[in-house]
Amino acid sequence: MLKVKIAGLGHYLPEHVVSSAELEAEYGLEAGWIARTTRIYARHRALDETTVQMACYAAQDALAAAGMAVHDVDLIIAAASGRQQAIPCTAAFIQRELGAPDGASACFDLDATCLSFIFGLQTAAHLVAAGTYRAALVVSSEITRRSLNPQEPHSAVLFGDAAAAAVLVPTPPNETAQLVCEQFATYSSGADLTTILGGGTLHHPNDPATSPTMNTFSMQGTGVYKKAARLVKPFMEQFFTRANWSRADVDVVVPHQASGHALDLLVARYGFTPGQVVRNLAERGNCVGASIPLAFSEAVANGRIRRGQRVLLIGTGAGLTLGAIGLVF
Amino acid sequence: MLKVKIAGLGHYLPEHVVSSAELEAEYGLEAGWIARTTRIYARHRALDETTVQMACYAAQDALAAAGMAVHDVDLIIAAASGRQQAIPCTAAFIQRELGAPDGASACFDLDATCLSFIFGLQTAAHLVAAGTYRAALVVSSEITRRSLNPQEPHSAVLFGDAAAAAVLVPTPPNETAQLVCEQFATYSSGADLTTILGGGTLHHPNDPATSPTMNTFSMQGTGVYKKAARLVKPFMEQFFTRANWSRADVDVVVPHQASGHALDLLVARYGFTPGQVVRNLAERGNCVGASIPLAFSEAVANGRIRRGQRVLLIGTGAGLTLGAIGLVF
Repeated sequence: MLKVKIAGLGHYLPEHVVSSAELEAEYGLEAGWIARTTRIYARHRALDETTVQMACYAAQDALAAAGMAVHDVDLIIAAASGRQQAIPCTAAFIQRELGAPDGASACFDLDATCLSFIFGLQTAAHLVAAGTYRAALVVSSEITRRSLNPQEPHSAVLFGDAAAAAVLVPTPPNETAQLVCEQFATYSSGADLTTILGGGTLHHPNDPATSPTMNTFSMQGTGVYKKAARLVKPFMEQFFTRANWSRADVDVVVPHQASGHALDLLVARYGFTPGQVVRNLAERGNCVGASIPLAFSEAVANGRIRRGQRVLLIGTGAGLTLGAIGLVF
Repeated sequence: MLKVKIAGLGHYLPEHVVSSAELEAEYGLEAGWIARTTRIYARHRALDETTVQMACYAAQDALAAAGMAVHDVDLIIAAASGRQQAIPCTAAFIQRELGAPDGASACFDLDATCLSFIFGLQTAAHLVAAGTYRAALVVSSEITRRSLNPQEPHSAVLFGDAAAAAVLVPTPPNETAQLVCEQFATYSSGADLTTILGGGTLHHPNDPATSPTMNTFSMQGTGVYKKAARLVKPFMEQFFTRANWSRADVDVVVPHQASGHALDLLVARYGFTPGQVVRNLAERGNCVGASIPLAFSEAVANGRIRRGQRVLLIGTGAGLTLGAIGLVF
């Protein structure tokens, strides 16, 4: 148990919205196919915004919710699958674009694809609880457009763009906020199920053998679903034992919005009621690393999650990794 | 102070060595120019090895030094500027290639360019000290070849390839190992001094406007040197105050091997004796994120650093970020 508090959450959605009907026309899919198979009706797409700009809009929203200023923050973690550029880290650009004081915060990036935010939350929580930093900003900003493969419409239609952020501080005296339990496990037997082959040393952008398709996302959706469905139940049993929580103790579940099927599993197979589970998939799509904090931030903004409630953040990410954080908000 | 111990360090150097004379011929530079201006005589270059293979050779070396097996590790952090591919994280591939048990460790990547390893060490130390993980593997593996710009020989000649790793465990009873002090500060006013513009959402590999040069490293060397020279002294004063150490208390300084000039500064301006400072630059070059752990691992392997000694890991990275960790080995 760590005595840390999410002092504020914030998010940003790019202005442009793409409907599933538009994508069906673009990719030559039967009308209604996307909503029927994925339950996604629309998603936001960044056309003019940059990764860093979106991150800063979300961070400003989180700081405002916390009643804090940029100079209060001394740790910035950009926790996302997508970065602005290869060098330097995205977090440094966020410090600059926010107008945060030069030299007053430490900046690094953390990547575990769709679980980047909750891994970042774990790291930030430990560093803040230990007193190493006073206040941490964890930001996930994702722009997917150029990484989608139109030849693989079943994955290309899933993704949306968004940014979301959280500010972490030590829990003030007499408040109940805490991080109760964290659990992560990577099953690298599934490492090839979800990939972008390019973007690194193996298929460098300047390697003539690197094809444009290698720079796009590819997912064996059925393989991921089957593997996750098999692994999630024992993973969650272990989590609830360690957290000393029952399913009924959880006020709100904020899952990674991977797909309609993945969200249905939480209800059908793992015993949560539909009322416990936050869903924003229909109008947001899968926002990669920003998915969990976006759903969390929206649920707090619309009053669905209130102070003192027990919240379970849970998801799967490429790797294949399972992750869960239980907290008192 | 954190009661954690670096149970073992390890490293791997690619077989192929490129001399400065060879590079002078390749880039059309005057004979002797590289050694005279950078003090680098040779560097290793990965021709056949992959980022993940090199990481695993270093990790196996570190595990052997620790007397541990892959199944002892439950956290793997790939802490480097370079990754194998964009999705999934490099750490997941390291888990698989090491033959570590599926699902028995959590994997993510961390990036702060040349300071990736010491940021990773900080995170791993807190997570292990808190008991969240039993043993953490922090690995930095860097392959720079395709990211070098032959039109910018003053930076292209600096870099070498290497991998290095550390295994962290809770300090056993009656041992003195500990992490004494950590300090990081990012000065994003210097974010544009050291860049690879490509490799992210701003200049995506599939964007027709992205040029090959954008995918290569660019550094305003004089600007970095001047900025770092101005910032390092107050940064170190603050570090020594917080650590309650004097310069003479430090048995061995392991600096990032950024350049000959940067290493000279530690002696000339900051009061360390030449005997305190580990230098492997001449035969290794600047190995980016692997630079600090490689110098650390080599110094332990050759007996220069012994158990119980006070070690200062220190460096600058793109961002511009300054970082230092003081520990009892």
